[in-house]
Amino acid sequence: MTTDGVAAKRADARRNVELVLDAATTLLATDPRVSLNEIAKAAGVGRVTLYGHFPSRAALVEAVSLRVITSTDQALSTVDLAGDPRDAMARLLEATWQLTRRFGAVVIAADDVLTPEQMRRVHEGPARRMHALVQRGRDEGVFRRDMPVRWQLATIQAVLHGASAAVHRGDVTAVDATRLVRDTVLAALAVTS
Amino acid sequence: MTTDGVAAKRADARRNVELVLDAATTLLATDPRVSLNEIAKAAGVGRVTLYGHFPSRAALVEAVSLRVITSTDQALSTVDLAGDPRDAMARLLEATWQLTRRFGAVVIAADDVLTPEQMRRVHEGPARRMHALVQRGRDEGVFRRDMPVRWQLATIQAVLHGASAAVHRGDVTAVDATRLVRDTVLAALAVTS
Repeated sequence: MTTDGVAAKRADARRNVELVLDAATTLLATDPRVSLNEIAKAAGVGRVTLYGHFPSRAALVEAVSLRVITSTDQALSTVDLAGDPRDAMARLLEATWQLTRRFGAVVIAADDVLTPEQMRRVHEGPARRMHALVQRGRDEGVFRRDMPVRWQLATIQAVLHGASAAVHRGDVTAVDATRLVRDTVLAALAVTS
Repeated sequence: MTTDGVAAKRADARRNVELVLDAATTLLATDPRVSLNEIAKAAGVGRVTLYGHFPSRAALVEAVSLRVITSTDQALSTVDLAGDPRDAMARLLEATWQLTRRFGAVVIAADDVLTPEQMRRVHEGPARRMHALVQRGRDEGVFRRDMPVRWQLATIQAVLHGASAAVHRGDVTAVDATRLVRDTVLAALAVTS
């Protein structure tokens, strides 16, 4: 094969990976249990090609999760975190919730497939930003200090995940959940008299 | 076969089911990903026998979950729910958390396998009791009423599940989590000024 031929093959492979990741992101975002065959079909690539790039469902879900988390991380980095920590938390929660709504099913698929260590890694960027804000709220005396920061971060994550599940069950609407997530987290963090 | 022979066979089958359920409850409580083969081995029954009673992992996890939920429901029914709804909530949360700690991994295994409808059914008994208490707290003016009861119940469940995950990760100890679950839920439910 010529050098050009090798380069063309590599470009093809990269394009196929992108097609598979795009299709997988879209399908996983609505159905966390979608099969690899359905993803291959939607991407317009053969099963052999898909398995060539992603030897297992777990490998594909991991790649999709990492890509979703990267774009999520970029979106969250634009949130204004200055000023009163409670207002900043409200803004960060709203942005996080919008992204959770959009990619919630990917997170559910990831939960089924990724190891706790992988889950920790994909949450690391957003978690660091949230951590810094909770810490600032504690330092400024508006968030309670009688609980470990790690617990408060776990609570925020639990409320967001619980909100996804509640919307999925039809217990609350996605729009109402924006306010409910904010009010619940702020109440859990507030200094008590 | 004689009538006695049939009766003996039935008794054998019942005993095997109990042996499998006991082994599965014990093993799933420490490792939600334990295999059917390991469960059969621990129960001292053959794989064919196990598959005869439980045609799939999901069927076994469902049976174990239903049994755990039944005994959990019985344990929770002994909790004193009279008096100040906040104190009653603290007692109910502590009992629920002790049971979550003990059977948390079974719940995680159930999460992976059961459908949302099955999960709803297995949580129904404990959920009804919690629902009645939250409602009483709202009626008596000590729990906030600017959130749907269903959201408050979802939050309580999310905090309990989040606590299991936090203990599993080593973020907090199981003993500390008792207080943290209580304080977080009571803060989330409290009427704000």
